[in-house]
Amino acid sequence: MARLRLEHGTVLPLDPADAVIHRGIVIVEGNRIAYVGPMPGPAVEPGDQIIDTSGCVVMPGLVNAHTHVSMTLLRGYADDMALQEWLERKIWPAEMKLTPEDVYWGALLGIAEMIRGGVTTFNDMYHYPRAVADAVQKSGIRGCISGVMLGMLPTAEDLLRDAIELVSQMKVKAHPRLIPMLAPHAPYTCPDSLLKRMAQAAGELGVRLHIHLAETRHEVEDSLKEHGATPVRHLERLGIFETPTVAPHCVHLTDEDIEILAHRRVGVVHCPTSNMKLASGFAPVARLLEARAVVGLGTDGAASNNNLDMIEEMMVGAVVAKGHSGDPTAINAPQMLAMATRGSAEALGLGDQIGALKPGMRADIIVVSLHGLHMQPVHGVVSHIVYAARADDVRDVIIDGEPVMRDRTLLTLDEAEIVERANECASRLVR
Amino acid sequence: MARLRLEHGTVLPLDPADAVIHRGIVIVEGNRIAYVGPMPGPAVEPGDQIIDTSGCVVMPGLVNAHTHVSMTLLRGYADDMALQEWLERKIWPAEMKLTPEDVYWGALLGIAEMIRGGVTTFNDMYHYPRAVADAVQKSGIRGCISGVMLGMLPTAEDLLRDAIELVSQMKVKAHPRLIPMLAPHAPYTCPDSLLKRMAQAAGELGVRLHIHLAETRHEVEDSLKEHGATPVRHLERLGIFETPTVAPHCVHLTDEDIEILAHRRVGVVHCPTSNMKLASGFAPVARLLEARAVVGLGTDGAASNNNLDMIEEMMVGAVVAKGHSGDPTAINAPQMLAMATRGSAEALGLGDQIGALKPGMRADIIVVSLHGLHMQPVHGVVSHIVYAARADDVRDVIIDGEPVMRDRTLLTLDEAEIVERANECASRLVR
Repeated sequence: MARLRLEHGTVLPLDPADAVIHRGIVIVEGNRIAYVGPMPGPAVEPGDQIIDTSGCVVMPGLVNAHTHVSMTLLRGYADDMALQEWLERKIWPAEMKLTPEDVYWGALLGIAEMIRGGVTTFNDMYHYPRAVADAVQKSGIRGCISGVMLGMLPTAEDLLRDAIELVSQMKVKAHPRLIPMLAPHAPYTCPDSLLKRMAQAAGELGVRLHIHLAETRHEVEDSLKEHGATPVRHLERLGIFETPTVAPHCVHLTDEDIEILAHRRVGVVHCPTSNMKLASGFAPVARLLEARAVVGLGTDGAASNNNLDMIEEMMVGAVVAKGHSGDPTAINAPQMLAMATRGSAEALGLGDQIGALKPGMRADIIVVSLHGLHMQPVHGVVSHIVYAARADDVRDVIIDGEPVMRDRTLLTLDEAEIVERANECASRLVR
Repeated sequence: MARLRLEHGTVLPLDPADAVIHRGIVIVEGNRIAYVGPMPGPAVEPGDQIIDTSGCVVMPGLVNAHTHVSMTLLRGYADDMALQEWLERKIWPAEMKLTPEDVYWGALLGIAEMIRGGVTTFNDMYHYPRAVADAVQKSGIRGCISGVMLGMLPTAEDLLRDAIELVSQMKVKAHPRLIPMLAPHAPYTCPDSLLKRMAQAAGELGVRLHIHLAETRHEVEDSLKEHGATPVRHLERLGIFETPTVAPHCVHLTDEDIEILAHRRVGVVHCPTSNMKLASGFAPVARLLEARAVVGLGTDGAASNNNLDMIEEMMVGAVVAKGHSGDPTAINAPQMLAMATRGSAEALGLGDQIGALKPGMRADIIVVSLHGLHMQPVHGVVSHIVYAARADDVRDVIIDGEPVMRDRTLLTLDEAEIVERANECASRLVR
């Protein structure tokens, strides 16, 4: 089988997070990693394709563990507003007009942006999930797909039936890059009975739940009033966490909440930029890591970020952890890089498949250039990736063994067409 | 006189901060802005050079109001450490070995990075300021130059004489892009007598003081013990603020401090990334702006940031202002853009010359592309510049009427040479 050989780069297998192979080689065979080590590695075989990665870092692709990818259509449409006003006056009225076609082109715009920024897997929750799945298949990215369930909608029963049908279909097809989930929006938008039915269905289908959790102080206060328990404790009592769960935000947590999340191996997804921008707060990530919770990193949607840039997200997460706690050693660069790769992969239940460069794992690999002036001199590559790098430094992206970007040119997508179509959709939404 | 015509772009004169001219034109004559308005503007004259800025934003260059530019040499050399340990074990031992040549190449590396990120003026404080001035002259950037004065050094008297001599020489030459200042490092590193002598000398020479102020809680506590006053109140009592002053950080302020800074028109420089990364805290910028204080934005040095990216700095400043205060409307996008341009210019005493696009002002202009996927769709350009843009979106840079970058190619500097020489210097420092 023809192989890809990524030669002469600085390899970060991220296993563990601060190991560095100077002048390393990574070999890809089919959709798997076959070899990781120092040069020269095993002999070249006929048909091997060689990619020179001199002056670059070769590392696992970034995993964006929580987003609403099609919200790229509403990027910068409304900023600097209080959450309720932002939702009720701007975001929801625009989203009321959404069609599957809008979701498809918005998803392609976001996926193209993410690939250009070194993201190889993302975890989505949005309306019309089949359109997002189509965009995943077209683009070559790996995506976790779920339709958002809002329990107060009159169509909730139809949505649930449809969500379960979509998951079943995807499970049957077993597409290696499409991972279905069930997504109750949040504890406060879904009645307990619905949450329990979705958890049971997910358990039976063998998929994860994806649910916003403990995002705002307001949500926690309401939960205490209504249920006499924090949102985390409430879900625990309902037995929801017996089903593997991905829980973005987790900003406002008690010590007991942290224990529950760690004990239940809930995939907490830290979204620092969105949580800061909407003034929700800052998740206690250092305490979660101490408690050995599973913690990944996500951008949230582009309407509250306003990009899908995981390299920027790592920087924001690492510097704000220090400023917020008053501890300059909080969340160091290797911890943050681990969070954006292995941590996110584990949060999505994919820790044995992606998030590290290790023989047998799926070949999701990015090549990041160190040539930019802002990356010089190179005292340490892990520090540079987290604190100095920009999305534009990502040179090549390989997903499931297939190159999808080479020398900053997308190989699977037509950027001009996507921009044109996404703009048509966006102008209709905000008209 | 041959003129530059920047045509067909979306022009942000930043006067006021949220005015937008769709399909605008900016005309540069010599080193001044001659015209700003909607297309087509005044007739083309023979010799006019036309720059098509369709699909781009045309705006004033960013002003990095506080940095130690040559610290690019120590980028990523030490992270995630407590301030004292970071300084004593890593930064100071490396800086002990500095030569003027190191400072020159480190400055060129940082200046080249800044130009590529749309910075047209920076305010520096470092050792061997003549070397920084040489780099400013060579590169075409605008720079405020000062040698750092540490009062406890045995060579303090020599340093002071030299600093005053340098300022006098620069004043005589009156180079339009070189603005000298005097820089006592901080109230806690310079005895009162020295602070007073420097303020008096600056007053006589007609230049500003540049002094770190109220950066850490520790500094404020020590000042209260030693002087019975906060650092701000202490400098006020000494009469220092009778001389125009630029004061980076100002993280820990009382209401009285804020009143003093506003009343004295001290140029406060907000450095959010550095203040977060070193866990110093977050400056009360919203309260400072309410008090009508002069507030600019700076990256600080690359050893504590770890880049000199003012576009990133705007995003960090704007989102953390919300997360820190719990108010999602704190520091909106137009306020942040104003801070990084006019605010910084005023903080440096250059508010009548740079920081806005207005006939008669110096022609410091940047062209920022909206073509990137992460900048689409374009619901609003001010939001995009602050929240979505990256340094790599800056396409052209004009400083003092001279193009210094076109289509992302530097016109005044040899990048390969700079990287090679800066790396040689850096490896000697950390050996």
